[in-house]
Amino acid sequence: MAEKQKKTTIHDIARELDVTFSTVARALNDHPAISAATKVAVLETAKRLNYQQNKLASSLRSGRTNVIGIIVPSLDTSFFSSVVHGIERVMNENGYSMLLYQTGESLSQEKKGIETFLQSRVDAIISSVSGEVEVREFYEQISKRQVPLLFFDRAINDLPVPSVTINDYQAGFVATEHLISQGYKSIAHFTSDQNLTIFKERYRGYHDALQKYNLPLQENMIFKGKLSLDFGKASVQQLLDQQVPFDAVFAAEDYTAMGALQVLLEKGVKVPEEIGIMGFANEAFGAFVTPSLSTVDQQTIRMGEETAHLLLKLIGTKDYYGATPERLVLDPILLPRGSSQAK
Amino acid sequence: MAEKQKKTTIHDIARELDVTFSTVARALNDHPAISAATKVAVLETAKRLNYQQNKLASSLRSGRTNVIGIIVPSLDTSFFSSVVHGIERVMNENGYSMLLYQTGESLSQEKKGIETFLQSRVDAIISSVSGEVEVREFYEQISKRQVPLLFFDRAINDLPVPSVTINDYQAGFVATEHLISQGYKSIAHFTSDQNLTIFKERYRGYHDALQKYNLPLQENMIFKGKLSLDFGKASVQQLLDQQVPFDAVFAAEDYTAMGALQVLLEKGVKVPEEIGIMGFANEAFGAFVTPSLSTVDQQTIRMGEETAHLLLKLIGTKDYYGATPERLVLDPILLPRGSSQAK
Repeated sequence: MAEKQKKTTIHDIARELDVTFSTVARALNDHPAISAATKVAVLETAKRLNYQQNKLASSLRSGRTNVIGIIVPSLDTSFFSSVVHGIERVMNENGYSMLLYQTGESLSQEKKGIETFLQSRVDAIISSVSGEVEVREFYEQISKRQVPLLFFDRAINDLPVPSVTINDYQAGFVATEHLISQGYKSIAHFTSDQNLTIFKERYRGYHDALQKYNLPLQENMIFKGKLSLDFGKASVQQLLDQQVPFDAVFAAEDYTAMGALQVLLEKGVKVPEEIGIMGFANEAFGAFVTPSLSTVDQQTIRMGEETAHLLLKLIGTKDYYGATPERLVLDPILLPRGSSQAK
Repeated sequence: MAEKQKKTTIHDIARELDVTFSTVARALNDHPAISAATKVAVLETAKRLNYQQNKLASSLRSGRTNVIGIIVPSLDTSFFSSVVHGIERVMNENGYSMLLYQTGESLSQEKKGIETFLQSRVDAIISSVSGEVEVREFYEQISKRQVPLLFFDRAINDLPVPSVTINDYQAGFVATEHLISQGYKSIAHFTSDQNLTIFKERYRGYHDALQKYNLPLQENMIFKGKLSLDFGKASVQQLLDQQVPFDAVFAAEDYTAMGALQVLLEKGVKVPEEIGIMGFANEAFGAFVTPSLSTVDQQTIRMGEETAHLLLKLIGTKDYYGATPERLVLDPILLPRGSSQAK
């Protein structure tokens, strides 16, 4: 190990060379007013004293750090970590490093993440928002600073920002239509209480599919809450306790579907014979459980790759907040498995 | 949205005020040679032009950014994302923001992550390394710069750096002993080919447990590879193809155990009656599968919290690379479930 030493500052280099702070600062920034000889002396001294060049200071001129900041609600769902892998694969190949910030669906954390990225002068920010209405003004700060911004999965649609999302309306429709095609007629829906278009669109798809097949929409079969294993358990328990006649559950997220499945299996209810279950997001565990969990795949790796390609294109155009931002909408892929078939 | 504008630089402010670059730079850094009146003028102009103060430049003096960098192999396993949540909970409460960097077990990515964090002048780095021998010198760079460093789960033990790990030897021992206590006698071991102490220690625990109970160690029952569902499938398939008589598998990681379980169930082998399975790391899916997967819990949230507490203590002492770094070793918790019981 090196002997113990304090962090070297610009002041240390200035003292060592007996020049002013500003001479060193300008030399490190390759300022034209500083002679070549001085620049060489400063750089040699900086190296000798193990001064860590502040990339941000030097990037004041080039305006580039080659670092991209990604804001995600949480990386402990397969969905977000898989999209991030897709983004990383393409961006790493193009010489960029990725820094990640988890908001935990907290608005104050989301604000802090944006501030941290702006202060670190990232070259661009990619985000999946926690609440569209509430976080709107944080994102306007990014556009004011002309930092390229891109949304994936969860976008603020009335901002002129490019995005890559999936067609959540279609996803909700085909998931519900699949349950109907398997003979289920009383389909409950467990969804999020967050103010996000993705969940409203999945609900709208569910609603329209019921309507298309002349099945009634029943308010007492729709549950809103914090999507999770526990929410799925509590909701299905409530349906059982209140003796609501239902024969299927379409949950807007896989862990919630899993909670419903667990309670039903514990009670001795046969899945899929008596009750069908459909999840959403194709989490890793869904293929491993018995019965395997039917779900909707969101083409996560492709979503990440398309996000990266769109960002590279955006950086190239330099027109970050044009009037017609590109909005790519991917198709969802229905994955029928054991939990919703064979009725 | 704001009207379109270029990113404001120090040059723009200098031009606006008709002063030099260095006057602006020094004013923004609160340099004593600059008059109070000039500082006020610079700050007002900076604000009016929407100049984003480079936190790093201003932190040259205070030396603090209140940002901590965390380097992890991958966040798409419950283990790492759960430890990170534990770290975040404590550090956020103490006013720090966390930036995450995924290495994907790639040494070049690990190097890039460290560089990115150092260039962003994070206040400290917390890391779980990809390969102890290979990455040693990257980490010496951190210590040379006197940036506080802490390891969790995967440490480089011959560097004087504090760490929070679990007792992997004990974990390997109790996992194997549990299988033996359930009547299994021919226990295969699937482990990683990475050069990491954690896997060597789990193997040593397995080895010593077999020895204690007078069971032979058979080389043809030990498989090394890239821990994954596919590696588990391929390894158990090889045992079956070569007709090696075995009645249990202890995998050093849950996805690998799950791969073995899936192949055995597909072949109609009864688990746990004919073959017992034991995983490692308590991934989220383990409790959901049938039979539920026996595993070893690594106290992830506690590991994260202890890591954060140790880091706060370290930052407080300012003695980052002392001769006797604190090394906290947590006990593993055996979680026997359906896949290894009832023989």
